[in-house]
Amino acid sequence: MAKKTSKPRNAFYAQSGGVTAVINASACGLIETARKHRTRIGKVYAGRNGIIGALTEDLIDTSRESAAAIRALRHTPAGAFGSCRYKLRSLEENRAEYERLIEVFAAHDIGYFFYNGGGDSADTCLKVSQLSRQLDYPIQAIHVPKTVDNDLPITDNCPGFGSVAKYIAVSTREASFDVASMAKTSTKVFVIEVMGRHAGWIAAAGGLASSADCEIPLVILFPEIPFDQPRFLKRVEALVKKFGYCSVVVSEGVRNAEGRFLADAGTTDAFGHAQLGGAAPVVAQMVKDELGLKYHWAVADYLQRAARHLASKTDVDQAYALGKVAVQLALKGENSVMPTVERVSSQPYRWKIGVAPLSKVANVEKMMPRNFITRDGFGITPRCREYLEPLIRGEDYPPYKNGMPRYVRLKNAPVRRKLSARFEV
Amino acid sequence: MAKKTSKPRNAFYAQSGGVTAVINASACGLIETARKHRTRIGKVYAGRNGIIGALTEDLIDTSRESAAAIRALRHTPAGAFGSCRYKLRSLEENRAEYERLIEVFAAHDIGYFFYNGGGDSADTCLKVSQLSRQLDYPIQAIHVPKTVDNDLPITDNCPGFGSVAKYIAVSTREASFDVASMAKTSTKVFVIEVMGRHAGWIAAAGGLASSADCEIPLVILFPEIPFDQPRFLKRVEALVKKFGYCSVVVSEGVRNAEGRFLADAGTTDAFGHAQLGGAAPVVAQMVKDELGLKYHWAVADYLQRAARHLASKTDVDQAYALGKVAVQLALKGENSVMPTVERVSSQPYRWKIGVAPLSKVANVEKMMPRNFITRDGFGITPRCREYLEPLIRGEDYPPYKNGMPRYVRLKNAPVRRKLSARFEV
Repeated sequence: MAKKTSKPRNAFYAQSGGVTAVINASACGLIETARKHRTRIGKVYAGRNGIIGALTEDLIDTSRESAAAIRALRHTPAGAFGSCRYKLRSLEENRAEYERLIEVFAAHDIGYFFYNGGGDSADTCLKVSQLSRQLDYPIQAIHVPKTVDNDLPITDNCPGFGSVAKYIAVSTREASFDVASMAKTSTKVFVIEVMGRHAGWIAAAGGLASSADCEIPLVILFPEIPFDQPRFLKRVEALVKKFGYCSVVVSEGVRNAEGRFLADAGTTDAFGHAQLGGAAPVVAQMVKDELGLKYHWAVADYLQRAARHLASKTDVDQAYALGKVAVQLALKGENSVMPTVERVSSQPYRWKIGVAPLSKVANVEKMMPRNFITRDGFGITPRCREYLEPLIRGEDYPPYKNGMPRYVRLKNAPVRRKLSARFEV
Repeated sequence: MAKKTSKPRNAFYAQSGGVTAVINASACGLIETARKHRTRIGKVYAGRNGIIGALTEDLIDTSRESAAAIRALRHTPAGAFGSCRYKLRSLEENRAEYERLIEVFAAHDIGYFFYNGGGDSADTCLKVSQLSRQLDYPIQAIHVPKTVDNDLPITDNCPGFGSVAKYIAVSTREASFDVASMAKTSTKVFVIEVMGRHAGWIAAAGGLASSADCEIPLVILFPEIPFDQPRFLKRVEALVKKFGYCSVVVSEGVRNAEGRFLADAGTTDAFGHAQLGGAAPVVAQMVKDELGLKYHWAVADYLQRAARHLASKTDVDQAYALGKVAVQLALKGENSVMPTVERVSSQPYRWKIGVAPLSKVANVEKMMPRNFITRDGFGITPRCREYLEPLIRGEDYPPYKNGMPRYVRLKNAPVRRKLSARFEV
C-alpha cells in the first residue's frame, strides 16, 4: 500500500546478470516513460553495477542525462549503468542484505523498484516485495525480463534472446557460405560455439541459418541431448558426402552421456597441451581425427550478445515496450509482477504485453520443449522454427559515424549519499 | 597480341584462396561490365572452385544467370562459383598444368583470363600471361585483387580487408561495452582473436574500436611484435587497474621470441601455411593464471571475413569498381596487369583506380609499416588510424527477408566439355 505523499516518490532501476544487446532499450523505455509522469514518479535512480549500487548506496541520477542520451540507450548494447553477477541469498540466510536495500530505498524515498534481469533477479525482486510488506516500507517491485538464455517462464520469449538468435542465425549462414566456397580443396566442416549452459534456445536459433529458400547442411548439438560421438560423426560424414561441407552449431552446454561438459573434457591438442576450454575446438578436433576432414571453428562468446549492430527489431521493440509497461504497471499500483510478451499469433506474428505474478516466475526455468528438437537430436522441428522466426524479424540499425556505431556513454552522475553506514558486498 | 576474330572471344573468371565478404562484388562488377560489351567479350565462364575448374574443364556458364542474380552478387558473401586453395607450382616444376590451362582456354575460345585473388594467384596470373606468349596463344591476363590480409603491394588496400576491419572494430567495441558492464563482479578481460598470419592489418583494425569520442582500454598483439608475456601482463594489469577492465585483440599470427606461434595447431594447409587457431584461449589463460582476472574469449574465424551483414561500403564500392575496371582494362588491350586502389587523399577520403604491372605484384608481400604500431608495440598510431578509418566507412546492408539476409545462390550451370582428355588435380 503506497503512502500518499505530496512529493512523488523516486524509482530505482538496476540491471542484473549478463547484459544483452537490448537491455538498454528496456532502460530507455522505462526512463522515457517515467519522465512523462513526473507528478507520479520523481527521479529514476539507477544502481551502479546493478544491485550492488543499491547495497552500497552507489546510485546514479538518471535525471542528469539529456533526452537525447536516454533515447540513444535504445540502440546501445550492454548495461549502461553497469550490471553484476551477485545473487542475494535467501531472506533466512542473509536478511541483513534485504534490510539494507530497504534502508537505502527509504533514505532516497524510493517507492518503485525496477529490476531488469533473469530468473535470479526475479527472485530477488520478489523477496524485496515480500520484505517491504513485512517491514511496512511501501515499495512496488516490478521485474523487467531480460536474458539471452530465453529461460524465463510465462513470457513467450525474453528480451535479448531474439537478437542473439538473429546474430547466430546470420553468422552461421554467412560462415556456411564461406565454407561451401572453400570445401573443394580446403575446409569442409565449420563449427560455431554458442551460449546456453542449460537450454538449447540459442543453439536452436542456429537452425534458422537454413531455410526453405536457402538450405544449409547443419548439425546442431543441444545441451538437452547427450552427446553421442559416433552418431555425430556419422551425421557429419553423411552431410559432407552429400553437400561437400557442413556446419556444426554446438552449445557450450553440451555434455556427454556421463554428464560431463565437452568443453571440459580434459582433451589435449596435437602437442599434448591441455585444451583451454571451448566445445568448438573439441568437436572440430574430433572431426579431424576421426574423419580426416579439415575444419575451422569459431567461438562467438560476448560478440553474440553484444551485437547491437545486428539486433532484431522485434527484440528491440519488445525490450522497449517491457520497460515502458513496467512503469505503467507501477502507476496502476501493481506490485510483485513482471510484464511479459504474449504471442497472439505466429503467422502473421502478433504480440502484446501481459503481466505475470513474480511468485510464478521466480526460480522457474523454462526448458526447450523436446518437440522443438528433431527426433534424431540434431536439428529443429517446424514447430520450433515457427516459434523462433518471428523473434529475429526486422533490422534496427544503430546510427554510424565514420564507419563505427555511435553507442552512448552516460554521465552516470552519482546521487549524494545520505547514509553514514557503509555496506560491504 | 590479340588475334582479330569476328566472333567475340570468351572470358574466364575464377576466385582464388580464402573468400571474403566482397569478392562476389568484384565478380558482379566484372560480369555486369562484360555484359555491356557483348560485341567484344562473348560469354564469361567461371571456374568451378577456382582454377581447378579450368584445369578440369569444369566451367560455369554465367550467361545462364539472370541480371537480378548477378546484381545480387554485390551483396552476397563468400565465393559464388567456389574458390580453392590450390597453388600452381612454378613453370619449371609443372609446365603441364599451365599447358593444360591454355588447352582448356583454347577449347573454349577464351581470350581473357580474370583471376580474383591474393599474392599467390597474382603469380599464377603472371605465369599464364607469360606462357601464353611462349605458346603463341593470345590471352589477356588481368588480376583482380582480393585478400582480407591486405598484403598486396602497390594497391593502397585490398578488397575484403575493409569489411573484416569494420567487423573487428565494431565487434571489439561491442564486446568491450559488454565487459565494461560486467567488470565490477565478473569478467574483467575480454580477448578476441583475429586473422592475419604474417601482417597485423586486421589486428590493427581492432584499434578502431577505441576512438576519441569512445575511449576503450585495448591491448593489441601484433604478429610483427614478438610476444613478451611479462610486458603484456603488466599492461593488462595497469589498464584493469585504471579502467576496471580491458580488451585484448590478438592476431592468430602472434609468435613468441623463439618465433613459435602462440596457437600452433601443428597442421598446415595446401600452401604449406601453418593452420592456426587458438591464440585467444592461450592469452586468456595467462591472464587468469598470472593476474587472477576473470576472462572471456572469442575466436571470430570465418565470421569476420563472411560478415557481409556488416560490410564496409567503401570496401563494397572498391571491390565492384576493381571488377569493372578489370574488364575495361581488358577492352583497352591491357595484359598482365592488376587494377589497384589509389588513395588520392585521406581527409576527405578520395580514391581512384590505378593499374599495376603483375610483375611488380607477384610474390611481394606488403607488411604493415612499423610506424603504424605504437612504440610500446600494443597499439596503433595516429598515422595508422588515418590509413584505416576511411576503409571501414559506410554501411551497405544486404536485403533481408524474415529476419535473414537474402544471399543469392547461382544456378552455376556447367559449360559442355570439349576436351576428351581428363586432368587430375
